[in-house]
Amino acid sequence: MSASPIFLGVIGVGGVGTAFLQQLARLPNAPQLVVLARSSQTLLAPTPAYSPAIPAADWATAAATPSLTKSGALQAEEIATYLASAPGRAILVDNTSDISLARQYPTFLKKGISVVTPNKKGFSDDLSLWKDIFASAAEGKALVYHESTVGAGLPVLSTLKDLVATGDEVTRIEGVFSGTLSFLFNTFAPASGSSDAQWSAVVAQAKELGYTEPDPRDDLNGMDVARKLTILARIAGLEVSSPDSFPIESLIPAELASLPSSADGITQFMSRLPEFDAQMANVKDTAEKQGKVVRYVGSIDVAAKAVKVGLQYFDKDSAIAGLKGSDNIISFYTKRYGANPLIVQGAGAGGDVTAMGVSADLIKVVERLR
Amino acid sequence: MSASPIFLGVIGVGGVGTAFLQQLARLPNAPQLVVLARSSQTLLAPTPAYSPAIPAADWATAAATPSLTKSGALQAEEIATYLASAPGRAILVDNTSDISLARQYPTFLKKGISVVTPNKKGFSDDLSLWKDIFASAAEGKALVYHESTVGAGLPVLSTLKDLVATGDEVTRIEGVFSGTLSFLFNTFAPASGSSDAQWSAVVAQAKELGYTEPDPRDDLNGMDVARKLTILARIAGLEVSSPDSFPIESLIPAELASLPSSADGITQFMSRLPEFDAQMANVKDTAEKQGKVVRYVGSIDVAAKAVKVGLQYFDKDSAIAGLKGSDNIISFYTKRYGANPLIVQGAGAGGDVTAMGVSADLIKVVERLR
Repeated sequence: MSASPIFLGVIGVGGVGTAFLQQLARLPNAPQLVVLARSSQTLLAPTPAYSPAIPAADWATAAATPSLTKSGALQAEEIATYLASAPGRAILVDNTSDISLARQYPTFLKKGISVVTPNKKGFSDDLSLWKDIFASAAEGKALVYHESTVGAGLPVLSTLKDLVATGDEVTRIEGVFSGTLSFLFNTFAPASGSSDAQWSAVVAQAKELGYTEPDPRDDLNGMDVARKLTILARIAGLEVSSPDSFPIESLIPAELASLPSSADGITQFMSRLPEFDAQMANVKDTAEKQGKVVRYVGSIDVAAKAVKVGLQYFDKDSAIAGLKGSDNIISFYTKRYGANPLIVQGAGAGGDVTAMGVSADLIKVVERLR
Repeated sequence: MSASPIFLGVIGVGGVGTAFLQQLARLPNAPQLVVLARSSQTLLAPTPAYSPAIPAADWATAAATPSLTKSGALQAEEIATYLASAPGRAILVDNTSDISLARQYPTFLKKGISVVTPNKKGFSDDLSLWKDIFASAAEGKALVYHESTVGAGLPVLSTLKDLVATGDEVTRIEGVFSGTLSFLFNTFAPASGSSDAQWSAVVAQAKELGYTEPDPRDDLNGMDVARKLTILARIAGLEVSSPDSFPIESLIPAELASLPSSADGITQFMSRLPEFDAQMANVKDTAEKQGKVVRYVGSIDVAAKAVKVGLQYFDKDSAIAGLKGSDNIISFYTKRYGANPLIVQGAGAGGDVTAMGVSADLIKVVERLR
């Protein structure tokens, strides 16, 4: 509750990082930005005063500020040492999607530096890293907030944590966790009205709109969803060893899985995808005949300790079927909430809403450290 | 972050209060319960040690504990003085729906006692009380958490506060905020299938199931919804002077409004309600002819500073129309979220889920005070 200074290091100035810096600039009582790093360059507030601070602005503006110390890429260990020596508590915001930086969270945390991040890699990798992160946080009396690793700024992890912490029994978690796959299925098999579009055409459209990764197979393989499920399952108390320890239904036809990930491989993939349209049309029709629609979902059955990711049929009047655009939806079935789940729905991707989750976490960490 | 002791006073042992005590008993690192009060009796841990603490249990068990100081009802001021003298930070949990206790929050807060409550009265009364509460909290460096005042344990206020704090522009908030009115309209005018039930029969059924207040007019007058809207609008930045400062469409026929609130008055109201079934059938049919359904909603247009509560028509495939049982739904339209709102949905009433919001708030306050 005291007003001791808090120091902030930010790594990553991509889409999320840039949106985060814009939000940081407008936060009242924001911590002092003393490290701003991107892949090949680092800005530091000069020691030993850690002042003047770096302005919270886009990279070019920040880098043009006089009186900052500039260097090439620093090792995570060096940034941790710099932050730990600041005259007050420190926070690292990791706005990258870099697994190697995530593996260094324990180094920061043990030094008492709290971590806030939308980077899902560290929390969805081997269970040993998950355990190391939280043990290191306890050891360093530091905090770890990672709301935006699932559903971006939507209140997903905070809600699950509240349910667990207050003693509710979470029985099942189910939802659409990928904005890309949400768009693909809402377009391919809408719950109201109908669509004649072939699956491959919908994928091509999504790629053109920039809704997919540069290589759409990075969405279609289901791994992004599997990583999110891993995080949720662990918070719900399941010891999921890794995101490939449970069934994931890939939407990449087996025949195309071995095409290279090069630009040429992507082109080949897109041009051959129509060969498999009949398969997806068949899935759609089968659902249709049951009065249902097909969706790509992740689910966690807590009691059965079963996590899975793949296609499933849903009643047309269900919340999952009625999803719009590229929205996510997450349903928590619990003992207290009974037959009707607690549902959170909305945009689950995008720079601004992802950064919002990061900023809101940062505010909470600052409130706890002050 | 230190492990200094925190002392807890709890007032109210009704449905929410009893569920809260059950949850408190299972919280790790719970604060020490040193005051437990109901309308006519108070239990206190003996001074000056404020130890042994009161067990977190139902009233009868707690009251049977030896070594506690017992008294009749204490003034709020006396409880505040007792808590403020404890050897550590203190928190008041108000599990009543008592406006007069809510008017005393500033007394507690100025003494540094944080307040956690599901009691919506204090936050939805005159704007002067709202301002006094938050000014007193700042003065006493105390915290105020009241998640369960809107939507019970659903993450409604925390989500709105995060949106506002991170600089999003909330343009509109809309939803079904009453479990009772949700049940009435989901039953009277379901979005899928159809119902022949008359309005008065649905009200009678809800009353029988215990879904309404003992006097159903306390639900039908819309005031509970208006109080929740007042709280949301204030957090969104609107200076709403009181919950009767904006249009509220009452579902009590004008001809029956003056019936007394006695048991006899309630009986008369229920027996005369069928006279007005044609009016509600007409509303339902009008919606039907437009392919829509009628729902009782609250909405806040932030830019226009317009708050209103009443009947509105919704497309049958909309999330509000598809609501089940007595669920609440709250949609936040914001600049960042664009055309598709951020939606929170689920049970918005009931002892367990309301207490969950209180317990989760308590955990957050303890985390910030430690």
